[in-house]
Amino acid sequence: MTEISKAAIIGAGVIGAGWAARMALAGIDVTVFDPHPSTERVVGEVMANATRAFARLTTAPLPPVGRIGFAATIEEAVKDTDVIQESVPERLELKRGVLNQIDRFARPDALIGSSTSGLLPSDLQIEMTHPDRLIVAHPFNPVYLLPIVEIVGGKLTSAATIDRAKAVYAGIGMKGVPIAREIEAFVGDRLLESMWREALWLIKDDICDVETLDDIMRYGFGLRWAQMGMFQTYRIAGGEAGMRHFIAQFGPCLKWPWTKYTDVPEMDDELVDKIASQSDAQAGGLGIRDLERIRDDNLVAILQALKGGDEGRGWGAGKLLGEFEAGLWARAKASDAPLDVTRPLLLHQVRVNPAWIDYNGHMTEFRYLQVMADATDALLRVIGIDAETAAAGSSYYTVETHIRHLAEAKLGAALTVETQVLLGEGKRLHLFHTVLGADGTRHATGEHMLIHVGAGKPCDPAPPVAQRLAAIAAGHAALPKPAAAGRAVGQPK
Amino acid sequence: MTEISKAAIIGAGVIGAGWAARMALAGIDVTVFDPHPSTERVVGEVMANATRAFARLTTAPLPPVGRIGFAATIEEAVKDTDVIQESVPERLELKRGVLNQIDRFARPDALIGSSTSGLLPSDLQIEMTHPDRLIVAHPFNPVYLLPIVEIVGGKLTSAATIDRAKAVYAGIGMKGVPIAREIEAFVGDRLLESMWREALWLIKDDICDVETLDDIMRYGFGLRWAQMGMFQTYRIAGGEAGMRHFIAQFGPCLKWPWTKYTDVPEMDDELVDKIASQSDAQAGGLGIRDLERIRDDNLVAILQALKGGDEGRGWGAGKLLGEFEAGLWARAKASDAPLDVTRPLLLHQVRVNPAWIDYNGHMTEFRYLQVMADATDALLRVIGIDAETAAAGSSYYTVETHIRHLAEAKLGAALTVETQVLLGEGKRLHLFHTVLGADGTRHATGEHMLIHVGAGKPCDPAPPVAQRLAAIAAGHAALPKPAAAGRAVGQPK
Repeated sequence: MTEISKAAIIGAGVIGAGWAARMALAGIDVTVFDPHPSTERVVGEVMANATRAFARLTTAPLPPVGRIGFAATIEEAVKDTDVIQESVPERLELKRGVLNQIDRFARPDALIGSSTSGLLPSDLQIEMTHPDRLIVAHPFNPVYLLPIVEIVGGKLTSAATIDRAKAVYAGIGMKGVPIAREIEAFVGDRLLESMWREALWLIKDDICDVETLDDIMRYGFGLRWAQMGMFQTYRIAGGEAGMRHFIAQFGPCLKWPWTKYTDVPEMDDELVDKIASQSDAQAGGLGIRDLERIRDDNLVAILQALKGGDEGRGWGAGKLLGEFEAGLWARAKASDAPLDVTRPLLLHQVRVNPAWIDYNGHMTEFRYLQVMADATDALLRVIGIDAETAAAGSSYYTVETHIRHLAEAKLGAALTVETQVLLGEGKRLHLFHTVLGADGTRHATGEHMLIHVGAGKPCDPAPPVAQRLAAIAAGHAALPKPAAAGRAVGQPK
Repeated sequence: MTEISKAAIIGAGVIGAGWAARMALAGIDVTVFDPHPSTERVVGEVMANATRAFARLTTAPLPPVGRIGFAATIEEAVKDTDVIQESVPERLELKRGVLNQIDRFARPDALIGSSTSGLLPSDLQIEMTHPDRLIVAHPFNPVYLLPIVEIVGGKLTSAATIDRAKAVYAGIGMKGVPIAREIEAFVGDRLLESMWREALWLIKDDICDVETLDDIMRYGFGLRWAQMGMFQTYRIAGGEAGMRHFIAQFGPCLKWPWTKYTDVPEMDDELVDKIASQSDAQAGGLGIRDLERIRDDNLVAILQALKGGDEGRGWGAGKLLGEFEAGLWARAKASDAPLDVTRPLLLHQVRVNPAWIDYNGHMTEFRYLQVMADATDALLRVIGIDAETAAAGSSYYTVETHIRHLAEAKLGAALTVETQVLLGEGKRLHLFHTVLGADGTRHATGEHMLIHVGAGKPCDPAPPVAQRLAAIAAGHAALPKPAAAGRAVGQPK
């Protein structure tokens, strides 16, 4: 993970604001320049959406949110920043003028990315004094959730800049893919445009309406593309005979009658009206804010689903999310603050996720144990046990749990877990968690016995772990024992 | 859910076999005709993949798997079936001949669907005696997981047939979308083809390789299309101003220089070699069976993720899955067999899902509680408590749980839950679950106290529920009490 600490966002519509939000959530201080009067409102709205999405996306310890400031000039925004992202409207002269100013006032070693959807980096960098550090870094909306960035260098861009850009975007959880040769619209928008053109013909000619077309994507091939794209999917379609067989079988189709739909349809009022009214019908009364919320929740859920892909190793965008989280954990470990062991520990906070709700509208029972287990993991990391030590053969396993459900938790509720160590001695770790709501409501308690296992057998943990645990246990020994500890199911109070 | 009990599959390559598997898993007896010598092998392999995927897709009670038989002639396959699906190779004369035979031997009221990717139904039905019941029913691979079917009628197809087809495909968990006007390749393959053509140019011209292109889809817009398709996504991009604004903003792009890529690239050896070798590199040594497994697991996870979408109400293909499951539950309720209450009940079986594995390679602790809670739900359904009664205000809530972890469970392991009712009296329900492996290993036990709630307050359940529960409790009273019942965390044995 490359550490950058300061970034500038020049142009803050939905795309620029999305960059600002993703960077701030990765702990980077961001300075925004955009003379538009609604800039602060737009950035605030996008940041609110992004914050909401990230609270559901990961329980890894996000760094303190970076500061988002607003500058009055490009000079003020870009001076002394590590990375500058330009996202002004798609007009060559405008972008060139803005990039020239950025180039003039930024440190010569600052990375400059342009969010352009289609202009050539060679055309953008031509008047710059340090054109070698200019790339196109083209993201997709919503920038704070979709991890892709197309990285395109121009004739004057250095190879080192491409490498550095990949590292910088990886540091904010993104996948930068270099495009080998610059062409207008690069790769992503070429693909989108080709299908968009075809779709417009289908609507214009009344073959189907926009809802049917979207349904064919989202109940059909969209589910394949979200995980494998097009070529890998077709590789499977080719079967054991592989790609060559697939192309031999389907290549000729390209010459069949349906390739006639390659003209560009006229965007007359009639077509615009047709699409707009069909789209209204499809939305079924859901406003843009509703659709954004649903889209973001679905993206979060799909990313999390893919994180468990390939038998837990993660797949595609979900694997990337797992790697981002591993980096966050590693960072959190390095910055552990001393603990106050004179009171129960507060190591885990989370919001009730839509996927956790049962048919009664409340958080479903096994999700309470998930929250408690995450709190246990947080404690284990504090004493020096994590995925890394587990891989090396040392970990704690839960052998016994007692849960009491005291009050229902609803969608979106903020939960905090209070953790008391009842015993931390030898191979045994005896814990008591209390799941608290924002208003102090006790939603549930969990009592847990864990056993340390090393090299496949129960045994004492390594001395540094034992010492850290003993220090907490010693502090907590002075606390009153929770009334529910030692309780069996159905035992009278 | 329309109930069909018998179907015929004519032509059983990957698509025909996918239809056979989806239908058999929905409880339909299927007769397959395909003279190819490897037909039984292909159907068996696809059925194995589909069975594996469904075990992970849903814990709803699938009906007994339909019988898959093989016929020696079309006549034998189609006589006395409700639905016939034709999936022979894409040659008009071949398909027409096969459909004419089907038409001749099938009941006049049987629905006939052709899986053609591009031929016009009017051309297919022209020689049939009962052409009104012929539709194109075009699915996408893998048919057993992707729910979409394009339904296209020809000039002689009746409107009633289109309606019936929608109902029939809904009964096997699919979404049939009627296409308003027949054109070659319909809607889905037009869209695929347009993007495929563009992709081939990008590879041919070395703008990027196939892995980069796939990455731009699966880390980018593919994640949007899996849930919303294209028009609804662009509606959001248009912001509050909506579709009209979006089209005004981006419509002109279609006339920009990049629309030049509409010719068809020559599929010469050089291009075929380039794609095949890049695809080999991208697969990174994963074979087709590996890729199929990963694809299916990812599809399952994405479908499950979308089932929790829109704040638990379900979204798109996930909502459809939820509706399919509700139908399965309703059917299971109607067919409840009498229980043997002289022994613990076996009401829930499940396989350890990839998403349930933790960094130690074992089923993570909270998933045990999920399995136990699903077993509790199964018992509640048996006594007459389900989502429907909960909506009407009567349900049981868990107040207390005690879990012991006895042996680890690994990915794919088959788990069965044995359930003993310790008490079922008044508002209290006291349960003991044992999670067993296929070899009888006791993986975990769970002791649970539930309270009946009606109209928001603890109270006795309705008399029919109380009677069903009392009958089980009376039977189980004769069983020995489990040794771990009444045990507190850390209590010596």
